[in-house]
Amino acid sequence: MNNTAAHPWNCISFTTDYGLEDGFVAACAGVIATIAPAARVIDITHAVPAQDIRRGAVVLEQTAPYLPPAVHLAVVDPGVGTQRRGVLLVAGDATAVRGLLVGPDNGLLLPAAEALGGLRAAYELAEPRYWLPEVSMTFHGRDVFAPVAAHLATGVPPESFGPSVPLAELVRLPEPVNRVERGAAGPALVTEVIAVDRFGNVQLAAHRADLARLDLPPGQPVGLHSADASAPGEARTVLVGRTFADVAPGELVLIVDSSDRLAVAVNGGAAAVLLGVQPGSLVRLDR
Amino acid sequence: MNNTAAHPWNCISFTTDYGLEDGFVAACAGVIATIAPAARVIDITHAVPAQDIRRGAVVLEQTAPYLPPAVHLAVVDPGVGTQRRGVLLVAGDATAVRGLLVGPDNGLLLPAAEALGGLRAAYELAEPRYWLPEVSMTFHGRDVFAPVAAHLATGVPPESFGPSVPLAELVRLPEPVNRVERGAAGPALVTEVIAVDRFGNVQLAAHRADLARLDLPPGQPVGLHSADASAPGEARTVLVGRTFADVAPGELVLIVDSSDRLAVAVNGGAAAVLLGVQPGSLVRLDR
Amino acid sequence: MNNTAAHPWNCISFTTDYGLEDGFVAACAGVIATIAPAARVIDITHAVPAQDIRRGAVVLEQTAPYLPPAVHLAVVDPGVGTQRRGVLLVAGDATAVRGLLVGPDNGLLLPAAEALGGLRAAYELAEPRYWLPEVSMTFHGRDVFAPVAAHLATGVPPESFGPSVPLAELVRLPEPVNRVERGAAGPALVTEVIAVDRFGNVQLAAHRADLARLDLPPGQPVGLHSADASAPGEARTVLVGRTFADVAPGELVLIVDSSDRLAVAVNGGAAAVLLGVQPGSLVRLDR
Repeated sequence: MNNTAAHPWNCISFTTDYGLEDGFVAACAGVIATIAPAARVIDITHAVPAQDIRRGAVVLEQTAPYLPPAVHLAVVDPGVGTQRRGVLLVAGDATAVRGLLVGPDNGLLLPAAEALGGLRAAYELAEPRYWLPEVSMTFHGRDVFAPVAAHLATGVPPESFGPSVPLAELVRLPEPVNRVERGAAGPALVTEVIAVDRFGNVQLAAHRADLARLDLPPGQPVGLHSADASAPGEARTVLVGRTFADVAPGELVLIVDSSDRLAVAVNGGAAAVLLGVQPGSLVRLDR
Repeated sequence: MNNTAAHPWNCISFTTDYGLEDGFVAACAGVIATIAPAARVIDITHAVPAQDIRRGAVVLEQTAPYLPPAVHLAVVDPGVGTQRRGVLLVAGDATAVRGLLVGPDNGLLLPAAEALGGLRAAYELAEPRYWLPEVSMTFHGRDVFAPVAAHLATGVPPESFGPSVPLAELVRLPEPVNRVERGAAGPALVTEVIAVDRFGNVQLAAHRADLARLDLPPGQPVGLHSADASAPGEARTVLVGRTFADVAPGELVLIVDSSDRLAVAVNGGAAAVLLGVQPGSLVRLDR
Repeated sequence: MNNTAAHPWNCISFTTDYGLEDGFVAACAGVIATIAPAARVIDITHAVPAQDIRRGAVVLEQTAPYLPPAVHLAVVDPGVGTQRRGVLLVAGDATAVRGLLVGPDNGLLLPAAEALGGLRAAYELAEPRYWLPEVSMTFHGRDVFAPVAAHLATGVPPESFGPSVPLAELVRLPEPVNRVERGAAGPALVTEVIAVDRFGNVQLAAHRADLARLDLPPGQPVGLHSADASAPGEARTVLVGRTFADVAPGELVLIVDSSDRLAVAVNGGAAAVLLGVQPGSLVRLDR
């Protein structure tokens, strides 16, 4: 099982928008178990909202760094059956490859490649000998991407799967908004909601370093406004804290979350509901 | 882990209507890990609607062929605790056994046995020595079926679990409707909705071969009507295509899906919502 | 994989309120796979309602006994980032340790320790060398508890993780209500709803032995009332049975369930909906 010397990539992570009700995930897992019986699959999530590439990218980016070196198989693929490419990315830093990523070339994989140290190489999936013998028009997860991930797990080298792709040609998602503006009372941060988690915590594009740029020590009250032109909303006060319990139950707190991003939370409640925001919303933070 | 020579059936698939909120699935997985520590479990789905035998049968049938040779454990069991039999089916073709199926004798397992090459033998589960020492009245998944699957995974031969059952005696689900009728303008297909997947794609009982019987080449517009006497509905036009993107966003397309069945989809949308159909609905396709 | 001689605790169960949409579960699984590559993870549930410690405790208690000897990692942790302790419990009977439990000291783990034979020892998690190098304020599942469980799975002895905690100091949940009262027509049982499962079955705090105390043989009709002062409700008649099918479809039946507790069920229906009860509700059973 753990012959990592022989199979350095025998851990496969798996991220999709397939849901768990239809057997799609298991069909892919079965293909992997057939080709690479020693591979271990770690499911990241299959609850990405249907065809929501950005959401899939965010979850993969924030989870992949906590896995051992792995093949990261990810499929959120509204363009399945069209001319969009399938790709294999090699990620790591100057000293080591830390992950291989397999999926459609639509921006889904790139944030995770950066989180794993940086994008080092990319290959187009162009060798049908690493796919299932019959490839359907609508389920490349099962017929193309899972078999490729499984062959990688058995030790087939990345360059075997097809021609190199110049990194600048890869499809990228737009960067989320995160900018400092000059406000009346000093600098203000306009930042995009990246994710809302199960608990209703609101994760922002801003990072830990932005706290220092705004000079916001713990205990500092911060004004929080909607920055969507279409939904200005009322201003609220958020306290800078370290964890949920730094404010009274029901109160808002601005923390550095477990992915090192700023997040707005409510002690014992759901900040996203209280604030009426969702991924893509813009908020403005100022003193 | 992969000593497949010693344990040819050490992969166990698992399909239920247990949901993931109660620990029922894990109790079964724990029983399997206790009896057959080397077995690997691949969860097909545990989100079958409560007691919906047909839905469980469809998911298992369409997923099982993509797994390596496996013991397929499936429990959707409204008759638990009654006189309904527990059974073990042997499936394969003339040259090899391709799967063993374990569950209640209520029709759940038979479509998958056919998909794995055909039903070859059946045994009643009648040997308590392969069950847990105490068998509850309401949880045979944990107390009977999971232990049997685990013992199969350790190499106990199928005929050890109980007496042979004549194949004609097994409980079968009714066949879904799928028939050609003569219409005014040529042949028409009346076919049942088999499944609606997470994306709202509407899978029909009709297969790829029915496309040819109706002489429907790619690009052909087809009339689609509800054929439920109680809900006649309006006629819609569907284009024969190969993938979702063969029609404009929001338009209907008739494709051969990844299980080789005809399916109605909407590019970027949910056909089941647009059409107002669900599993069991009848639709009529004609030129 | 199953070198249980070398790694007696290489099975890790995992129970949380993390949900499956955010990658939190996978981040923990990745940490485990990094530290203890040979460990096998069995997910009990990740669908505990957010911060519902009692619900997590009930599911873990009822599932853990069906697993092989295991490290039970459980995180429902409203107090993360505060001074609440992390603990490691040793459970078993006089002859053997049957389980190790890791999580917050908030009552979540104790019922399972009892179900595994009894609580034998407890240690505070106080040795950062068994945690991730950086510990966030909001995700101790990933940064503290999962690493500890993984180190246990590699064979690190429980006493290495921190100082012993007197058992009487551990935080406990209140016992659920379950008492016999004298009624007009003989003894009556006032008992708390412990859980409502996916099928709507209503599990009570009462055990099999309480049936005998009330002298309720199979076939006996029993009166069932709401015992919440605020919601008295109408009386209903429930038949004592052995399984769902002992009553007509739509009728109520009182059974001993698969965890040896009394439960009210409806043949083919959802008793919790019919009765309008939920966990924490009190009901009264009398002849």
